Amino acid sequence: MTAFLDVPSGRAARFDTPAPGDPRLARLSLNQRTTAQWSVREALDGARSAGLGAVGLWREPVADVGLATVARWVADSGLRVSSLCRGGFFTAEEPQARETAHADNVAAVDEAAALGAPTLVLVPGGLPEGSKDLAGARERATEAIARLAPYAGERGVRLGIEPMNPIFAADRGVVSSLRQALDIAEEHPVEQVGVVVDTYHLWWEPGVTEQIERAGDRIVAYQVCDWITPVPADNLLGRGMMGDGHVDFAAFTRAVAAAGYAGDVEVEIFNADVWAADGDEVVATTVRRYVELVEPYL
Amino acid sequence: MTAFLDVPSGRAARFDTPAPGDPRLARLSLNQRTTAQWSVREALDGARSAGLGAVGLWREPVADVGLATVARWVADSGLRVSSLCRGGFFTAEEPQARETAHADNVAAVDEAAALGAPTLVLVPGGLPEGSKDLAGARERATEAIARLAPYAGERGVRLGIEPMNPIFAADRGVVSSLRQALDIAEEHPVEQVGVVVDTYHLWWEPGVTEQIERAGDRIVAYQVCDWITPVPADNLLGRGMMGDGHVDFAAFTRAVAAAGYAGDVEVEIFNADVWAADGDEVVATTVRRYVELVEPYL
Repeated sequence: MTAFLDVPSGRAARFDTPAPGDPRLARLSLNQRTTAQWSVREALDGARSAGLGAVGLWREPVADVGLATVARWVADSGLRVSSLCRGGFFTAEEPQARETAHADNVAAVDEAAALGAPTLVLVPGGLPEGSKDLAGARERATEAIARLAPYAGERGVRLGIEPMNPIFAADRGVVSSLRQALDIAEEHPVEQVGVVVDTYHLWWEPGVTEQIERAGDRIVAYQVCDWITPVPADNLLGRGMMGDGHVDFAAFTRAVAAAGYAGDVEVEIFNADVWAADGDEVVATTVRRYVELVEPYL
Repeated sequence: MTAFLDVPSGRAARFDTPAPGDPRLARLSLNQRTTAQWSVREALDGARSAGLGAVGLWREPVADVGLATVARWVADSGLRVSSLCRGGFFTAEEPQARETAHADNVAAVDEAAALGAPTLVLVPGGLPEGSKDLAGARERATEAIARLAPYAGERGVRLGIEPMNPIFAADRGVVSSLRQALDIAEEHPVEQVGVVVDTYHLWWEPGVTEQIERAGDRIVAYQVCDWITPVPADNLLGRGMMGDGHVDFAAFTRAVAAAGYAGDVEVEIFNADVWAADGDEVVATTVRRYVELVEPYL
């Protein structure tokens, strides 16, 4: 059992939590999936009232409310949208499925632009059902990014290739290391294609510090959460609150800062326990852990 | 549920299984953990009666029987010992624990020599309890290998650094890619230190074909099993029978053969369903899958 909340009650949880207005929270972004128990409206309100600078939004809940409505809410809130999750899923083999994926990604770019999100996070997709052709899937993802990139550039949105922990290579993301993501991104203008640096996905990568340095201004998003063990039965929900696992956030964050990254820091945690808790308590714990483990190294 | 056995009954399982004496089985090795339900004696008998050329042994069950006894059984069986599992666990921080680990690895080298195993497989070890210093753990593993290598060379045993799937980076193996393992191995004479190429651990690695080519005669063991999804709750037991998962054995095996590897091919599967089955049926299925998916590409 992970200690994903610092204290048991809502009132106590805020006891030594930095208050709204604390400048240390200016770059902290709540990815709305961290509080999946909340609606879009609740996430915006919760982030604002806790003093955060930004939120990361997801396409599906935004669409459920309506894009224009959420865009207005965001504008009214004073929050930035650090990124929109997610485009991608580029690895289908059939031409028609690839066209459908491209059209969906064009729409995702438009949505990011409408929300003022500088970055569309791309989850590359896994192996097609029954396929074992990992090299082919990687090639198709690379081609699809090349096709989408100019349009993203026109709309002022940067594509963020998200390398994913190899635990997901078969079923979710065939881009498996920052090195590989940069090999793809560097084929394109920096204002069109960058990379997402996520501690959960990359903490294990040999030479990751050098790759972060190499990434430089290709870093379009910095997402933090922890690698916890034992890996939960549903490994999609295996992300932990910062400090509950094995990630050295100081070293990782220093490297990202040294690379020149000056954007928001998104906390993105998929975890059934976190989702079962009170949203305000999750945000309060997030704030405390961020201020303790991440922010000092930015 | 994976289809880890081809047929339900022992008699039928052997129906179209290559018979003992089939030359295609000459390089096939049964890692004894694939049939954890068997004793050492049963594994030797089972491998020999199925026509395999070799077995991979583990230190603990060998010690339970007695090293000299097993060495005699092996000699009498006509089987090769393709490797001994396992040395390693090099990442402790305290000097005394590191001395203990070194002494244990010296003993493991001696056991490999006594069994006629050309290779001692090294599992590097994970992060010490509570530590987040991955770079430090990797450094200590590298130093421990450097210390052990000359002794292994004296005894005619090659150390096989086993890069492990990043799913195990925290708790089992801090060497996470073939590229990284080769960076360590290449500091030593080729007759002292090599690498273990295991499809389960490495199938996702970007550029793995080039790394296998780079490895060349550093490859001291080739282990095969499949990456299956969903990843089981106990991820240590998430290895599947070849053909049940996502690994392209043809491409992987071609690369290993092209690198010049001419040794045994060990089937090493940790899987609760496989362990619950009849050992002879597991071996029969292993043989059929190997002849279909691996052997043609050697």
